Amino acid sequence: MSCIFCRIIRGEVPSQIVYRDDQVVAFRDINPQAPVHILVVPVRHIAGVADLTPADVELAGRLLLVARQLAEQEGVRDRGYRLVLNQGPDAGQSVDHLHLHLLAGRRFHWPPG
Amino acid sequence: MSCIFCRIIRGEVPSQIVYRDDQVVAFRDINPQAPVHILVVPVRHIAGVADLTPADVELAGRLLLVARQLAEQEGVRDRGYRLVLNQGPDAGQSVDHLHLHLLAGRRFHWPPG
Repeated sequence: MSCIFCRIIRGEVPSQIVYRDDQVVAFRDINPQAPVHILVVPVRHIAGVADLTPADVELAGRLLLVARQLAEQEGVRDRGYRLVLNQGPDAGQSVDHLHLHLLAGRRFHWPPG
Repeated sequence: MSCIFCRIIRGEVPSQIVYRDDQVVAFRDINPQAPVHILVVPVRHIAGVADLTPADVELAGRLLLVARQLAEQEGVRDRGYRLVLNQGPDAGQSVDHLHLHLLAGRRFHWPPG
């Protein structure tokens, strides 16, 4: 497996890991788009949102709950934050391993890209 | 309760409902930012992502899975789509009822707002 996020999860590629449990890992984006920019990913390789199945409902929910918890830890709960999931070419999905972007620390515009 | 999304869910305010089950409702955004722009919301009033609790993990996951299913129905699975959750003032959250934006049908830029 050459998936860059799988390699990060296995510790083969250095990264700033900020959260880890048996199902979810989070690390800082190497090309941050805001003062806080963290990627929350499933440990299991899932290509994207489109590849989630009904059996993944709890895992999918955990991605959101870990992001919520990290926002608290980063001290941005009250100011707020934006969560983004990109699926496929129109969205510019850059790594084919499902990842939730947690962005915070500045104001975000509308539309979201 | 004067929450506009609660009123839409109860049918007191007209909207283009595209999905409904006992826990999740989805309807078209009245100010669309892309050819496909649907809001996926929990039936239960939850102010935002920051108000989710660990007990809501399955509900949170269902929001993502319903969005995935709607993307298939809208025929945008292969082109792709962007999912966005805004929490609080920095993100411009406009209605204090948790809602997931499903945006598709055009290319999206980076950063996401």
